[in-house]
Amino acid sequence: MASSRTGIWLIGAKGGVATTSIVGLLALKKGLTENVGLVSELPQFSHLDLAAWDDIVIGGHDIRSTSLLDEAYKMVFESRAIDGRLVEKLKDDLTALDANIQDGTLINVGKMITSLADEKLVQLQETARGAVDRLKGHIADFAKANKLDNVVVVNVSSTEPSVDADQFPATWKELQPLLSEAGCRLPASSLYGIATLELGYPFINFTPSLGTALPAIEDLANSQKVCHMGHDGKTGETLLKSTLAPMFAQRNLKVMSWVGHNIFGNMDAKVLDDPENKKTKAVSKDRLLSKIFGYTPQTLVTIENIDSMGDWKTAWDHIHFQGFLGTPMVMQFIWQGCDSLLAAPLVIDLARFADLAQRHGGSGLQTQLACFFKSPLGTEENDFARQFAMLEAWTESLKS
Amino acid sequence: MASSRTGIWLIGAKGGVATTSIVGLLALKKGLTENVGLVSELPQFSHLDLAAWDDIVIGGHDIRSTSLLDEAYKMVFESRAIDGRLVEKLKDDLTALDANIQDGTLINVGKMITSLADEKLVQLQETARGAVDRLKGHIADFAKANKLDNVVVVNVSSTEPSVDADQFPATWKELQPLLSEAGCRLPASSLYGIATLELGYPFINFTPSLGTALPAIEDLANSQKVCHMGHDGKTGETLLKSTLAPMFAQRNLKVMSWVGHNIFGNMDAKVLDDPENKKTKAVSKDRLLSKIFGYTPQTLVTIENIDSMGDWKTAWDHIHFQGFLGTPMVMQFIWQGCDSLLAAPLVIDLARFADLAQRHGGSGLQTQLACFFKSPLGTEENDFARQFAMLEAWTESLKS
Amino acid sequence: MASSRTGIWLIGAKGGVATTSIVGLLALKKGLTENVGLVSELPQFSHLDLAAWDDIVIGGHDIRSTSLLDEAYKMVFESRAIDGRLVEKLKDDLTALDANIQDGTLINVGKMITSLADEKLVQLQETARGAVDRLKGHIADFAKANKLDNVVVVNVSSTEPSVDADQFPATWKELQPLLSEAGCRLPASSLYGIATLELGYPFINFTPSLGTALPAIEDLANSQKVCHMGHDGKTGETLLKSTLAPMFAQRNLKVMSWVGHNIFGNMDAKVLDDPENKKTKAVSKDRLLSKIFGYTPQTLVTIENIDSMGDWKTAWDHIHFQGFLGTPMVMQFIWQGCDSLLAAPLVIDLARFADLAQRHGGSGLQTQLACFFKSPLGTEENDFARQFAMLEAWTESLKS
Amino acid sequence: MASSRTGIWLIGAKGGVATTSIVGLLALKKGLTENVGLVSELPQFSHLDLAAWDDIVIGGHDIRSTSLLDEAYKMVFESRAIDGRLVEKLKDDLTALDANIQDGTLINVGKMITSLADEKLVQLQETARGAVDRLKGHIADFAKANKLDNVVVVNVSSTEPSVDADQFPATWKELQPLLSEAGCRLPASSLYGIATLELGYPFINFTPSLGTALPAIEDLANSQKVCHMGHDGKTGETLLKSTLAPMFAQRNLKVMSWVGHNIFGNMDAKVLDDPENKKTKAVSKDRLLSKIFGYTPQTLVTIENIDSMGDWKTAWDHIHFQGFLGTPMVMQFIWQGCDSLLAAPLVIDLARFADLAQRHGGSGLQTQLACFFKSPLGTEENDFARQFAMLEAWTESLKS
Repeated sequence: MASSRTGIWLIGAKGGVATTSIVGLLALKKGLTENVGLVSELPQFSHLDLAAWDDIVIGGHDIRSTSLLDEAYKMVFESRAIDGRLVEKLKDDLTALDANIQDGTLINVGKMITSLADEKLVQLQETARGAVDRLKGHIADFAKANKLDNVVVVNVSSTEPSVDADQFPATWKELQPLLSEAGCRLPASSLYGIATLELGYPFINFTPSLGTALPAIEDLANSQKVCHMGHDGKTGETLLKSTLAPMFAQRNLKVMSWVGHNIFGNMDAKVLDDPENKKTKAVSKDRLLSKIFGYTPQTLVTIENIDSMGDWKTAWDHIHFQGFLGTPMVMQFIWQGCDSLLAAPLVIDLARFADLAQRHGGSGLQTQLACFFKSPLGTEENDFARQFAMLEAWTESLKS
Repeated sequence: MASSRTGIWLIGAKGGVATTSIVGLLALKKGLTENVGLVSELPQFSHLDLAAWDDIVIGGHDIRSTSLLDEAYKMVFESRAIDGRLVEKLKDDLTALDANIQDGTLINVGKMITSLADEKLVQLQETARGAVDRLKGHIADFAKANKLDNVVVVNVSSTEPSVDADQFPATWKELQPLLSEAGCRLPASSLYGIATLELGYPFINFTPSLGTALPAIEDLANSQKVCHMGHDGKTGETLLKSTLAPMFAQRNLKVMSWVGHNIFGNMDAKVLDDPENKKTKAVSKDRLLSKIFGYTPQTLVTIENIDSMGDWKTAWDHIHFQGFLGTPMVMQFIWQGCDSLLAAPLVIDLARFADLAQRHGGSGLQTQLACFFKSPLGTEENDFARQFAMLEAWTESLKS
Repeated sequence: MASSRTGIWLIGAKGGVATTSIVGLLALKKGLTENVGLVSELPQFSHLDLAAWDDIVIGGHDIRSTSLLDEAYKMVFESRAIDGRLVEKLKDDLTALDANIQDGTLINVGKMITSLADEKLVQLQETARGAVDRLKGHIADFAKANKLDNVVVVNVSSTEPSVDADQFPATWKELQPLLSEAGCRLPASSLYGIATLELGYPFINFTPSLGTALPAIEDLANSQKVCHMGHDGKTGETLLKSTLAPMFAQRNLKVMSWVGHNIFGNMDAKVLDDPENKKTKAVSKDRLLSKIFGYTPQTLVTIENIDSMGDWKTAWDHIHFQGFLGTPMVMQFIWQGCDSLLAAPLVIDLARFADLAQRHGGSGLQTQLACFFKSPLGTEENDFARQFAMLEAWTESLKS
Repeated sequence: MASSRTGIWLIGAKGGVATTSIVGLLALKKGLTENVGLVSELPQFSHLDLAAWDDIVIGGHDIRSTSLLDEAYKMVFESRAIDGRLVEKLKDDLTALDANIQDGTLINVGKMITSLADEKLVQLQETARGAVDRLKGHIADFAKANKLDNVVVVNVSSTEPSVDADQFPATWKELQPLLSEAGCRLPASSLYGIATLELGYPFINFTPSLGTALPAIEDLANSQKVCHMGHDGKTGETLLKSTLAPMFAQRNLKVMSWVGHNIFGNMDAKVLDDPENKKTKAVSKDRLLSKIFGYTPQTLVTIENIDSMGDWKTAWDHIHFQGFLGTPMVMQFIWQGCDSLLAAPLVIDLARFADLAQRHGGSGLQTQLACFFKSPLGTEENDFARQFAMLEAWTESLKS
């Protein structure tokens, strides 16, 4: 199968993760960076007909009026995360891309996110259906203008307040009419998801927000025969948890308590500083341990906004476990990673793999992508090594 | 297949690892401890006809004249590693077991180990063949006296100086006559191995010493149709390396340097303080990274004797890796484990699995036990998750 | 001046800190332990006529009906903090001491502490004045029965909910009548303080509870010419803060943020798990940084109850500072100390120094003892090295 | 006293520390950076007539032919230590300063340093006296050309192999003639020191090399009435040791072992990778503990070259101490600092304070500067807080 022209449409396109993904994609197109951090570039995936850098076109939605170049320079000078010489070389390309970023929606995103948005968007009055149709228009125009065979939409916007999923009906047929009612409770992440699925494009939710993780929207995805997956990209502390916890389990070492403290200071941190939004995240970071151990140790996860950290996230984890004869022992780790730089290559990987899955006839939840998510939808597998084996097995199956 | 009476014969039977294994086995027999830390007690292995605690008899070789009870109390009061109430309850059993421990051999164990030995053993004059025959006598008598169907010999003695394996011929036929010559260069660990294999019993080398890792001795094992495996039990820092390194590889994160410092203060630490003996260990701890990554980051591993640490081993590892766009990031971990308590359950697991393999017709190197070793013989697989999957697959195969 | 017979009366006498102090004092009396951890035993204080171990008699108040021996064994077996052989040797002495421990008061201690108390005490109906008089009776009887020249009362009970000190009048004359009114808002710690001061004995508040830190009670202390001091013993993380922060200040390194996470699982942790009680503590741990730096970095202090930790408190601190040319750097520390064992010797030191001060004519707040407290009353000095120099200077002044 | 024109002459002027000092001085002159990290800029020193930024002129010796601008860019792009925008603004100034850097000497610097030097300097044949006179000429010309009232020479060159100081005579009268003999064993650092002192200028040894720490050279300093001080700038791990060790001592906590591992990858690290040079450094980092404690815990200090670290030095220290009742506890710290950025402001401070001391009639060893050195000459005080108090007391004394 020949490679095709693919769009990557980012929700939250001017945020740290999106900006870094865009800088990275532009750098890859120009051969200005190596492929470090990109899972899809591992040798075992080299036989796949993944979208080539040259065949990828970038667009997206955002709710702030900043420019991509300004955001990129923040990653250089405020966070000391990206080499300034790279952004210098991509100046014109970044500026040009601003034209590909359209106004998103603030429906049910909560006070904290609304407080960051463009006044024009805050004033905008529209129903959920109205928003969905407007968003669809942007994506469809983008696909047409760029002659794209496929567009993968990836949500990398700030975490929304948690929503009770049980309030919504279980089928698309029942949910659909609610979009036209005033006061529809679906959050923006779900509206972006609906817009994407209705267009027949794959949707990836890289955040812990609701997105397409609703029976009625899964129903839509299935009937549209499109791929979708989520949620919450597994970039740092949880990646380590899902790697280390199986080791404790397989050595029959009994974990008594697992405490994790996370500090960072980017926009995501500020949004999570609101208790409503933080709750969505903490749940996502914590629940895998019980699934891996088969019992529930005492756990504690905090995520705190410390301004000086910028985009650098430091996690300290303290694992207190019982060894042979009941003797308590301790493992601690300290992870000092740049949040956006850890997320960005996974965003690109997910877009490429979702595009591939769609082209190979996939539809519904793509559980073979579980290794990329803190809370993979549609599977109970949380052991990173086994999740990665699932990805390898799937790509093997595409060979024949 | 009905469970049978099994001996566990420990080389270095009065050392920290052996003492802890013995305390543990006695406690398991009496129901005084839970099965925490025992891999063979995981639910997925419950269908196997592993030796039951009641069917296990303990014996061993040592070179020091101390008593097991004194060594157990060292673990209680000097190392604060074992609960004193447990040893109190096992006092008589431990004292009785001293009678099951016979004189080992000091042939080619190096100056450091010789300095710790009983004067009587230092004076002993015998050829390698003489030693092998004497050791065989002890084990055979033990088997007979206790009506054992099988005896698994596990080497948990101090690390010997490194030996050049290339100096020995490749077949047992050629090696055998050398044992009778004065000045035979085979180290004690190999003589214990030969004695065991000649008796038709399985041999496990839990140390980085040479043991049976010699083509000519592998030849003997194969012709005797007995199981053997090694080497160097994977208890702490290296276990973490073999768990974490695959994660870095699978995320395509480029590890630039991996520094590991280990401090502890037990007898093993003192023996490793001799540069000759340390070399054997450091090589074993380090080589897996290149195999997992497919490239060689700068590495540094130190193992230092710090008296105050006693049996508590603390490892600090600093992993410096490149993320997306070449940005350097850091992961550090601190492992605070009690060395003997981490090793002891694995010694018991290995004895049970080796006994099982032998009873099921296994012979030669048992690569399905790779997950227990820093440098597993006969396989290049160093990814802990994959090694564990190999163990699970083997036990599945025994079902049919 | 000849040494005199001195009582040490502990509020919370069966808690972890008191139990450990008592085990320690008994061990010191019998020569069963060295003087490690005791500041008053440093060579520079050897010229002082501090109370000798043999001249010290122990008593106290508590609200729980447990026995000292049971509490001591908890420190041995649950927390692995004290060597069991030591408690074994002190068995009879500990049991005998139970008779010296009287019923305390639950007035205004909050729900959490009340939930731990003896039912008999929960039912007890008395005014604040009634309680003060009852408590005074216990202490006076103790002094008389043991022919004591002096009794130092040290509060080591659980942290009370925070109280607004501004609600109370500024003089003893005004405050005194309120004690007889129903609904007097003074917390138990203040009632113990008043009882002590009215008896003319020194009072030390080792907790962050209010105690004697009220203008009206300071007024009482001054008129009674008795010594008192507080509050909140400086045992671990805050000790390090007050040692390290001056170094950053003296190197002109600008601390941007200082994050500290504390986990432990003893009774103190459980009481602090109630947000009301925790607030009292967190404020005490945090405020010294601004005083040392002269500016206020972003700070975060958490104290969390993790059951498996028992009496072992682990603190992880992350200090993010700006170096020359504005470059951000990081210092982290991990403190793994046994809470009660760190506090106990300071309790003994404070009792000895307060007794000495009283005998040398001291009265009012004893600021020369600032180095022992997280929030020393009556002084703004928070630099540990300077606080220690104050102690040395005072003891020098006693020489003449 | 009016401020005067002062030269700062750096030995090793193109190394990381010097380059950073120069970038910093230029930035301070132009108001492009704040005074973070500069001790001499603390409020308590504001009354002193320290050299103003505008009155400072920079020059130096080096043995490599690289340019200051190239070295500054290494700090920006290889080490990610300095903000690139700053170097951009100082481009012309840095390039101009290359003219102020003269050829140093390689006499007795050892193989490792020689291997880094300009071929021209390797070929140079001269006696020690010849070198001293040549170096004096450079400094004198610099002073004259820039109309300087004083020149402070600061040695920030790579660590030399250790030298046995006992081989040299005790007086300048005896040492002086040896300089003219072939094979004089004085290392380069001492020759720079002699050149400086003979010119009547102050000399600061920021490295662990011998420098002026020789009775005969101290004799010269005294007779010349010039100030000098050393040695080995206290920038990171040792600064923490000298801050934390007194706390352990003052709490009577018994340190059983103190292990410190240092990794970094700059030129200094590469020079120290030679065992000869490393020995000089490790001794300097370690000896203060015994002096502070009054007993000698087991210590271990390693310094290892890890290329990927560049100028970032990470130290992990593990402090194992006994608390009350003999219970072992642990403190660990991790220091992640940029070596050159920590050293550079101290170099500037030392130059300013030494200039001040000289102008105020000081001569000989300047022990009031002890807080800046790992191994301060002429004093046994290693407690950082007390050393800092010595500096404050001295500056107070200058007021009158």
